[in-house]
Amino acid sequence: MSEKKTTLAHLQTVTESLESGTTMQIRYLLNGALPAQDVARLLESSPPKERKLLWELIDSKNEGEVLQYLSEDIGVQFMRDMDTERLIAVSESFESDDLADLLQHLPETIVKEVLASMSTQDRMRVEALLSYSEDSAGGLMNTDTITIRPNITVDIVFRYLRRHNTLPDMTDNLLVVSRSDRLLGTLPLTKLLVSDVNATVRDIMETEYTVIEAEMPASEVAQLFEKMDLVSAPVIDGSNKKLLGRITIDDVVDVIRDEAEHSMLSMAGLDDDEDTFSPIMKTTKRRAVWLGVNLITAFIASYVIGLFQNTLDQVVALAILMPIVASMGGIAGSQVLTLVIRGIALDQIGAANTRWLLNREIIVGLLNGLLWATVIAALTALWFDNIKIAYIIAAATIINLLFAATTGTLLPIFLKKIGVDPALAGSVILTTVTDVVGFLSFLGLATIFLI
Amino acid sequence: MSEKKTTLAHLQTVTESLESGTTMQIRYLLNGALPAQDVARLLESSPPKERKLLWELIDSKNEGEVLQYLSEDIGVQFMRDMDTERLIAVSESFESDDLADLLQHLPETIVKEVLASMSTQDRMRVEALLSYSEDSAGGLMNTDTITIRPNITVDIVFRYLRRHNTLPDMTDNLLVVSRSDRLLGTLPLTKLLVSDVNATVRDIMETEYTVIEAEMPASEVAQLFEKMDLVSAPVIDGSNKKLLGRITIDDVVDVIRDEAEHSMLSMAGLDDDEDTFSPIMKTTKRRAVWLGVNLITAFIASYVIGLFQNTLDQVVALAILMPIVASMGGIAGSQVLTLVIRGIALDQIGAANTRWLLNREIIVGLLNGLLWATVIAALTALWFDNIKIAYIIAAATIINLLFAATTGTLLPIFLKKIGVDPALAGSVILTTVTDVVGFLSFLGLATIFLI
Repeated sequence: MSEKKTTLAHLQTVTESLESGTTMQIRYLLNGALPAQDVARLLESSPPKERKLLWELIDSKNEGEVLQYLSEDIGVQFMRDMDTERLIAVSESFESDDLADLLQHLPETIVKEVLASMSTQDRMRVEALLSYSEDSAGGLMNTDTITIRPNITVDIVFRYLRRHNTLPDMTDNLLVVSRSDRLLGTLPLTKLLVSDVNATVRDIMETEYTVIEAEMPASEVAQLFEKMDLVSAPVIDGSNKKLLGRITIDDVVDVIRDEAEHSMLSMAGLDDDEDTFSPIMKTTKRRAVWLGVNLITAFIASYVIGLFQNTLDQVVALAILMPIVASMGGIAGSQVLTLVIRGIALDQIGAANTRWLLNREIIVGLLNGLLWATVIAALTALWFDNIKIAYIIAAATIINLLFAATTGTLLPIFLKKIGVDPALAGSVILTTVTDVVGFLSFLGLATIFLI
Repeated sequence: MSEKKTTLAHLQTVTESLESGTTMQIRYLLNGALPAQDVARLLESSPPKERKLLWELIDSKNEGEVLQYLSEDIGVQFMRDMDTERLIAVSESFESDDLADLLQHLPETIVKEVLASMSTQDRMRVEALLSYSEDSAGGLMNTDTITIRPNITVDIVFRYLRRHNTLPDMTDNLLVVSRSDRLLGTLPLTKLLVSDVNATVRDIMETEYTVIEAEMPASEVAQLFEKMDLVSAPVIDGSNKKLLGRITIDDVVDVIRDEAEHSMLSMAGLDDDEDTFSPIMKTTKRRAVWLGVNLITAFIASYVIGLFQNTLDQVVALAILMPIVASMGGIAGSQVLTLVIRGIALDQIGAANTRWLLNREIIVGLLNGLLWATVIAALTALWFDNIKIAYIIAAATIINLLFAATTGTLLPIFLKKIGVDPALAGSVILTTVTDVVGFLSFLGLATIFLI
């Protein structure tokens, strides 16, 4: 029954078949035996070379559907390799919002050709979507709304709906609009179905509903969906209030996952759309940048240590112990940093509670500082049989944990305020602070009291 | 228009009012002016003391609704403080799945009293839900399904539905069941609405649909919802195939967010259900454990340095430079670790692609090792005017980056295999490896070639 085991099991089958050079079974799996969603996951879980081989084994008529489920990064790569004719054929099976997302990443000349191939109505839809940023409500929305007028009866709504062959997926509301396309209310299907057939739409429509302006950032849209437990929500033009389309929960779920992953990946200097199986050179380049940035931090720390060359020369025990102080500060600081970064992402942290948070973190830092400084001092005294060094390392640990608490709390709030991503820049700056303060306080105190 | 600004803005208002001792405006906000979802977010964004004050200002009749939107951790705290009578009153407004979730965290004697107060039907429902783990499909499901029989016509379905006053939220499918409650198919509302009124349910129902067994882990449920773009899915008993209930996307979204946040929080040694504003002592205790674990790592690293006391005594430059090697390894390793942990969480990594991944990471480690080792060597040669140390630090950096790549890839896969959470244990073990290998290779090579 377990769906996840099957994808990895299929991958095993596919890998073995590729190695032995028999493609018949793979063709069978890719073209019908597996649903398009599973084919997409199979491609995503494959290394570059295999991924390309598998893609070539998919029949042209199935490519469009698989592309819809592929992560954008990978889908765009395949589309770049297609000739325009095939691209046009494939794009016909797309929903307008998915198509717009992918077109944004293709060269302009190709986009023009694809648009030119479409019917006027479809082209206008996609062009409208292309005008919004991918990270806004406009970029998330689809234009497949079903609209009705307020003065008709429920009975007529039923007859109107029956004229459709199908209704769009995730249609949970009909949208009630005026003659000039302004949104007047929503009519949930669950309400429509229990209403008297002679009632008018105006009588039964909901007038308290969530409406989203096209310019709203995608992250706010996600928060709104989570808070209000929405399946879909209408999108309007912020200036003239006309209905533009609707956003559905399936697209919002992707935003929620991306947002939640963003902090973790950024804190390690990884890209949001990181493909687990991206090729060697691409991976090397991306990682190199982050290592370079961190090397600066490391050299700053070494520079600080170098200031105390004379002290270290006289008491070698200090060199042995100094990483402990820096490391404890780093760990304590990144706990606070992680918590605050999440709090900011969830919009829980503002001027009203920052002071309380800082107070708590300083007290927590002090208490944990006292606890672990005692342990470190005891172990140091035993190891080096030197009570003075024990006192010094204890003091340095407490100092560093207090700096870690303060920096961990205020740094991300400050970075956010000046428009820098706290998840990306926070951990590097924090480590610099805890390393510098750790070495400075420990070696500094030692220079004063020991030499 | 921005919803998120309003919550923090309200918080500001509330804080100021609390400080000045005027509660009238707050009462007004909490009891009607703000929707229950916003009140819940306000409580979640408040420090403990204010949170308690605010809770006391909420009228008893509104408590139930707010509780439904509060994060579990916080909701349970308030419920623990209620007397049983109030708890019973509050529980009446709950959906069965939410109630079961909260009851799981309350003392058994209280749970019994609450259950005893319910109607037989409701009690049986909640008891059935309580028998499933919170992290399984059974724990996520709700029992508010609307079921129909296959032999009736669409017209009769409409008449049957009209007998309801309302349909449950997020009803996108009617579930078609046999006389013995076995699931035969689903009838999407979007299909029902466009069908001929004389067709029978059997003619138009979907027989290809996603069904979930009650024992399926919540994480797999979430993956299924994401993959198949579901709004709701029926849950059946794995053994007798009878319909038990349904899971809706709003509960799955919570699972998705928790899962995605889990890795980030665990890597910093924080709890999943970490309350950003939990009180001082609770925070101190939780953090202390993680600091203690990391202290062991730090002392292991110091022990390794201590082995080279003699070498350090002769060349103090080594003490100054040694953190660079350890730090570069730590950074490179945690990039790999983070990527692999996410890959495991998304079920992208298995036996079929581990070897490829390890190969890539080793080559990437080698390339970045060569690049940055050259930079580090050049800077070292300039700083200390010693070409020998420059060669040694370059070699040590490359060695450590190769260990970091191998450990970062294999460690989380291994931890997962033996049933240990890679996000929690991975970063500590990785740091130990990169610290030990960093100091050992640098100081070891120095001892051989320099002394």
